[in-house]
Amino acid sequence: MRFTTLKLDSLRDLLIEELRDLYSAENQLLDALPKMEEAASSTELKAAFSHHLEQTRQHVSRLESIFQQMGEKSSGETCEAMKGLIKEGEVLVKAKAEPDVQDAGLIGAAQRVEHYEIAGYGTARSLARRLGESQMAQSLQQTLDEEAEADKKLTSIAESNVNIAAASTERR
Amino acid sequence: MRFTTLKLDSLRDLLIEELRDLYSAENQLLDALPKMEEAASSTELKAAFSHHLEQTRQHVSRLESIFQQMGEKSSGETCEAMKGLIKEGEVLVKAKAEPDVQDAGLIGAAQRVEHYEIAGYGTARSLARRLGESQMAQSLQQTLDEEAEADKKLTSIAESNVNIAAASTERR
Repeated sequence: MRFTTLKLDSLRDLLIEELRDLYSAENQLLDALPKMEEAASSTELKAAFSHHLEQTRQHVSRLESIFQQMGEKSSGETCEAMKGLIKEGEVLVKAKAEPDVQDAGLIGAAQRVEHYEIAGYGTARSLARRLGESQMAQSLQQTLDEEAEADKKLTSIAESNVNIAAASTERR
Repeated sequence: MRFTTLKLDSLRDLLIEELRDLYSAENQLLDALPKMEEAASSTELKAAFSHHLEQTRQHVSRLESIFQQMGEKSSGETCEAMKGLIKEGEVLVKAKAEPDVQDAGLIGAAQRVEHYEIAGYGTARSLARRLGESQMAQSLQQTLDEEAEADKKLTSIAESNVNIAAASTERR
């Protein structure tokens, strides 16, 4: 979000602000996901990152359609939280770590990103509903569902392969 | 998280890293919540922020106990994601906005914070479980449950008072 004083006269203004924040977040994620995929060791985790990159492209395109329908610009915001989240992910990407431990760390970083988006899309979807924009709310809900699914998929990878393998190397 | 190369030899190293990240996040939140409480207009929202400040103090103290038990330092990390999240919250705190719209925005910012913590505590709890640290896992789960509760409370405030009131001022 911006760092000059924000002016919000209506829920519609707030919704546009939320959508621009998400648009910036998704675009930052487009750059980060390939690096996370490359850093991952588990085939399943690599596939999950690759699949989520495809989904992220669709999320960007859905947001662009919404901006077009609203007659509003998509740009002008930098999502500062996603900047921080991605910096944290990069620390894991570059870490000198046991492959399984690094994978567990990458999953943790990716789940923070998913939860950021879950909260953001949840807010935007609720605002769209309240403004009577049912088609827009539906489109945002679709992305929200996909982010929640991605989060669950990461949990299942963490609980099956990665963490068990990593834990087995250091059973105390 | 740190910006020098991170070295992770074991899941325990990763767990310490995650806990330090959360410790930094909670401490940043201790400073931010009173400002969000002051900026909120709805009595219910003010009370929710005030209640969550009390809970956050307990979360910090739980983390301190964990560090003590592990014989590890709590400091040394700055959670960059929380820095970004709080910057976004400050934009809403300082916004020139209709009170109800500002409240809706503050709720959105606070829910992003809650979701960050839900993801972070979820990862830390799972790592503790895998390391056989059941007492630690239980303590982290308790905080996780409180963060999830705080998130739900914010949703219910958004759905009852704030957004409906704000929407009613601009029915299109």
